[in-house]
Order: sequence, then structure tokens, then C-alpha cells
Amino acid sequence: MKSMGVIVEYNPFHNGHLHHLEISKMKTNADAAIAVMSGNFLQRGEPALVSKWSRAKMALRSGVDIVIELPYAFATQKAETFAFGSICLLDAMHCQSYCFGSESGDIGAFTHTIEKLERSEDRMNSLIKENIKEGMSYPSSVSKAIASLGLTGEGHVDLTTPNNILGYHYMKAAREIGTAMKAFTIQRKNADYHDEDFSSATIASATSIRKALFSEGFQQDVIRQYVPESTIEELISYHKEFTIFHQWERYWPLLQYRLISASLDELANIYEIEEGIEHRLKEAAQLASSFQEFMTKVKTKRYTWTRIQRMVLHVLTNTTKEQMISHCHKPSYIRLLGMNEKGRKYLGMVKKELSLPMISKLSSAKQEDIHLDIRASNVYAQGLPEPYKAKLMKMEYSQPPIQL
Amino acid sequence: MKSMGVIVEYNPFHNGHLHHLEISKMKTNADAAIAVMSGNFLQRGEPALVSKWSRAKMALRSGVDIVIELPYAFATQKAETFAFGSICLLDAMHCQSYCFGSESGDIGAFTHTIEKLERSEDRMNSLIKENIKEGMSYPSSVSKAIASLGLTGEGHVDLTTPNNILGYHYMKAAREIGTAMKAFTIQRKNADYHDEDFSSATIASATSIRKALFSEGFQQDVIRQYVPESTIEELISYHKEFTIFHQWERYWPLLQYRLISASLDELANIYEIEEGIEHRLKEAAQLASSFQEFMTKVKTKRYTWTRIQRMVLHVLTNTTKEQMISHCHKPSYIRLLGMNEKGRKYLGMVKKELSLPMISKLSSAKQEDIHLDIRASNVYAQGLPEPYKAKLMKMEYSQPPIQL
Repeated sequence: MKSMGVIVEYNPFHNGHLHHLEISKMKTNADAAIAVMSGNFLQRGEPALVSKWSRAKMALRSGVDIVIELPYAFATQKAETFAFGSICLLDAMHCQSYCFGSESGDIGAFTHTIEKLERSEDRMNSLIKENIKEGMSYPSSVSKAIASLGLTGEGHVDLTTPNNILGYHYMKAAREIGTAMKAFTIQRKNADYHDEDFSSATIASATSIRKALFSEGFQQDVIRQYVPESTIEELISYHKEFTIFHQWERYWPLLQYRLISASLDELANIYEIEEGIEHRLKEAAQLASSFQEFMTKVKTKRYTWTRIQRMVLHVLTNTTKEQMISHCHKPSYIRLLGMNEKGRKYLGMVKKELSLPMISKLSSAKQEDIHLDIRASNVYAQGLPEPYKAKLMKMEYSQPPIQL
Repeated sequence: MKSMGVIVEYNPFHNGHLHHLEISKMKTNADAAIAVMSGNFLQRGEPALVSKWSRAKMALRSGVDIVIELPYAFATQKAETFAFGSICLLDAMHCQSYCFGSESGDIGAFTHTIEKLERSEDRMNSLIKENIKEGMSYPSSVSKAIASLGLTGEGHVDLTTPNNILGYHYMKAAREIGTAMKAFTIQRKNADYHDEDFSSATIASATSIRKALFSEGFQQDVIRQYVPESTIEELISYHKEFTIFHQWERYWPLLQYRLISASLDELANIYEIEEGIEHRLKEAAQLASSFQEFMTKVKTKRYTWTRIQRMVLHVLTNTTKEQMISHCHKPSYIRLLGMNEKGRKYLGMVKKELSLPMISKLSSAKQEDIHLDIRASNVYAQGLPEPYKAKLMKMEYSQPPIQL
């Protein structure tokens, strides 16, 4: 029984994901599909629309066989760390292959670019540093360094697009840990990563779907053509149970309160807070009356929106430099969120050979390992209105892996 | 020009306060009345109904000539520290006398009890410690110790009632600092400190007035007979400007969030958090869906409601042991909240002799001194709905002393 891995957020699961999943299974010729999925907070420093349990259900109902959680310490990080944690977990699950979407779609181009970059890594790093010194953001600095090194054009991967960057880091991480997993990539169709509007008849970006969910209430009919029926059902069920979908604005009063009440020293101690930006955050928190307004006030050329969002997410979850650094070195557990019949079989087969402990029940987990995930879930629940917070917090402890 | 001081919260200013103020002026034969008033958070560990600016206006419109703020480091403390800070400030303002309400009403009984207690202070303290060890709350331990020492009955002050306790501490503090101020007391009329229902035709406790303000909206007509017209006007004006009155429930989501996201070490570092109660607070925060429910879950025989409220207020304002202890030794400034024509004259007269710097504008204040008050005001503003928070936070910096 062979398995292949995908690295996902499913926020929410839509037709593009379904397409990727089906092609991946075909291409890799695997029996079982394993998804490493971000928990309640995502790589762009945002709360997921619905909880990880609900998104795990969507995944299982659309053809994923096992869903495991990418811990907070990896899920809310820049591409390199995000990719490293994900690849480690798929490797620990004994996947034979993994398959990622990319703008390029050409696995040879990835290999070629990685090998070339490895040879000029020092030069690359010093170029990036120089560019950052000149006031450029990290992504722009990387792009410029790549261009300077002549790593563009035919046969190369364009490392200015988000999915190519992730793919590059997946393959780099795989080389680093010396995994036996084989890499596959599929060219992404239609919807761009952050397209806000619907451009295809059946495939839309998660961003445009979320936009439709938040604008003028829950427009089921608008999104129905872009997501599987099971996603609609899960969204309806979550909304019925908890009355809302999660978004940053719901956490704004908490973030504002924390920025206002924390000392500058406490803020400076939070992961990713650097260069005295805590002063800027505190000032903006005194003036802004929404998260959007706050972000606009904080944003500078040097800091991308995503970087600031991740920074303030760590403020919200109270994640210190020390805590994060001690957790993001390497995953130390596999948190099982759900599985179907085939997934159960696969687990039965590999269970004894797993290179990391598998956590199905929180009570049996080492608390110091999983502590950041528990806190993240508790904070995530604070975005709900009363009396639903306690219910969602309790699920973190009482919910067994979803079984389909 | 002679002045007398009163120590108040005015939450809100009512006929009982008016009565006390008028009798105090007569008894002390003073030209000017100075009120030391708690800022936005009160001695019982609660947010004031309306901001200190609004309460200062009420005071000035009802016959107080100068209002100064009792800093957070004294206002939110047990009777002893609260009293010490207040007396120091009245002394610094060169009051010739001060006058407090008490259940006793007999200044001689206070003096007698204080002198007797001073002689048996060590015995008293060890009795209190023993009682606490047996699991009694602090107030019960004190009462029992007093009874054991025979300090009850004729000629003594009953130190089990809240205003007698405060009075005792005012006079003790006055002796400690060796003030020249003369003490007066007036017997409290009608309404008990915490009566929740109206029992007299014109005098009601602040508790019952607040209850009427919160139950079924803002019942002006119910409270009109118990407060001066100027109080009603101020309440209407505040409600019009900020749309709510402040109460703990409005801060519950913030407190819950903080208790959930803070580490046990961070909580243990908060002022008044002792004996591992941080575990209990964290657990209750996971289960409760309102402040009332939370308090009920945390409450034990050992901890009074007030003590827990003060404890969690310090969690809310993020006030550490170190911060509080370094600020509550002795007041280091006089924050002027407001004055009328007579108050201005008095200030002109004593200004050069004040033993502490007077702060009228925040920008000219030493930030390390007044930092706890600024933060308390910023946190207090978080109880407002948007977009009013920024407005109230800004007032802390931009509002000059109220001039009537």
C-alpha cells in the first residue's frame, strides 16, 4: 500500500483542491492520500475560516484518506520553515511521494534551479542581505538576488510566484532531510493564489470564495459552483453550530487590547517582532478602530502585509521567540485530525514504523510538545461569540480524530 | 483660605455623597473642598460606570472645588494602601482637615481603637496569620482577631463594617505620616454600602443606583430621586457620547482571552496572584461564558469576591508585582482632574508649597511615574464599542483639567 502526501490549508476545500488531489493520486500512482494541513491559523498569519476539525472533514469527504496537523510552529511561518515542517511530517508518515501545485509545473526546472542555487548559496544570501539593507522587503530582495544571479528564464523556475517558492522549499527540505520521497508537481489552473474575483466557471481561488462568504452574509449560491457539495454542507454545519466564520476582524478587539496592555519589553519578546516595530504596533493600536485600519497604519515598504500579519498573530497567541525557536526546529509529533477506512488501513500498516509519536488523544500527548497548538486553538476559539467559545476550546481535548 | 479633603469614588455621585459633602464642609468649617477620587478602576476591583473625567464633572457640579486622582496603584488596593495613598495626597494638597463617612460616626472611638490596636499590633498580626492559615478569608481573620483581643463593644469602633475599616486606615495613615490634618467623621445615613435595593426616599447606595442603570436600560426616572440633576445630565451625556456604561461584563472577553493566552508564569507574576491561584483562574476561563460565571467558579471561602476581582483586574491591566510594588509605596504626583473658580484660587495660593509635583498635562509628566494610570485608562477604554475606544484613549493625553 503506497501513499502520497499533499501540503494544504483547505480554507476552504474547493474544486481547485479537488482537481489537484485527483491528478496527484493519478500521477503518483498512490493508494492513499495524506494531507498535512495547517491547524487553526494559516501561513499568511490569518485565522482559518472554520476550525481544523471542520476542514479535516471537508478533506476526508473529498478524497483525502488521512489528515494530520501542521503544528502552529510551522504553519504560521515563512515558506522555508512551513515547507520544512510539512516535508518532515510526510516523510515521518512514510509517504512514497509528495505532489505540490506550482505555477511552473515542471519538476525538472525545480531540480535544476535548486542545484544551481545550492552552488551559489553564499552569494545569494549576501545579495539578499544587501537588498534588505537598502530597505526592500524580503520577497523583493529574493527576487532581485535571483535575477542578479541569472537564475531566470528558460529551464529555471520563476521564484517570484508564491507556489513556485513553496515548491522550491519543499524540494530543498526534502534534500536536506535526505528523504526517499519522490517529488511531483502539477501546474496550477486558472485561479491565481490571491485572486479576489471569480474568473473561471468551476475553479476559483480560496481568497475569492472567502470574500463571497463574508460579503453580505453567507452566499451559498455564489460559491456552490466552485466547491464540492460536501464543503458547502460543512460550511453550513459550522455556521449553524458556531454562528460565524472566523476572520481577523473578530480578533481585532483582543489584539488591540493586548497591544495596549503589554509592555514594550513583552512585545519585543514576541516571535518576529524586530527592529523596534513594537513601538509602531502600539501606536497604531491606539488609533485604529478595525484590523484593516490597523494594518494600513502599520504597513511600510519594508514589511509585507503577510509579515506583519504573522507578527501580530504571534502577539495574539502570545508566542515568544524562545517558545517558537524551541518548537520550529523539527516536528516532534504527528497529530492525527482524521481518516477514512483506507487511511485506517494504511495507519495500521505503518503505525509501528512511524518515526514520530502519533497523537490521537491530547491527554496522552507530551504537553510541552503540543502546548503551542493547544494555546493556538484556545485563542482561535476566542473569535467566536458566547456561549460557543468553551465548546470549541473543549473540542481540542475531547474531539477524537474524525472518522469517515 | 482653608481646605478640607474627602476620599471618594463617586460611582456615580448621588444624594448620599451630596449630604456627606455638605455636612463635611460645615463640620470642618473649610472654604474649599478637595476630593481625592479613584480613577477609572475602583477599590473593589471594578471599572467605574463612567470615566474619571465624567465623574470629576459630577463632583464639581455638586460642590467639590478640586478633584485629584487617586492613582491606580492605590485606588485598586486593600483598605490600608487605598487609605494611605489618599491621606498622603490630601496632606500634599495642604488640607487642614479631612472628613470620612463611617458606620460609627464617633471620632473618639476611632482614636481609642487605634491606640489600643497599636499597642497590640504584633499579637493582632499573628492572630490574623493563624486565622488565615486555618483557611479564613482576610476580612474574617481580622474580625476574629479583633474579637479575640477584646476590641469590641462600647467605646470601640466596630471594625467589621467597610466604612469603619476605611476610616480606621485613614486615621492610621495620618498618624504614620505625621500629618497636621484634623480628622472628622460623619455617620452614614440610610443606605448600606452594598444595598442593592432602594430603601430611602432620597438616599440610595451607589450599588442600587448602578443596578437600576444596568437593568432594562438606562432608567433615568428610577434614579432621578436619588442623585442630583447634574449627575443625571452627566450620565445622559456620557451615554450619548460613548453609548454604554462600563461594567465588568464588557471586559470579560478581554480577561478571558488574556487568561487563556498568558503563560502560568506570566500570571504568577501579576500583582496579588498568589498560592497557585493562576491554575484556578486559567481553568475557570476555559469554562465560563460570562464574568459572573467565571467569578462564581473561582470563588472559594478563602478568597473574597473583592479580592478575586482586584486580582483579575490586575490581570486585565497587566500589572505585575514589580510594577505595583514600586508604585504603591508613596504617591509621587498629584494628578489634577478638575476645579472650579474657588479651587483655582486655592491652587494659586498653595501651588508653590505643594510637596508633590502637580500634573495638569500628561505631556509634562514623568512617564515612569504615571505609566500605570495611562495604561489603566487605555484598558478602560477597551470596554467601549468601536469607534469610541480611540476617542477615550486620546482624552487621557488631550483632556485638560475640567474647569467649571
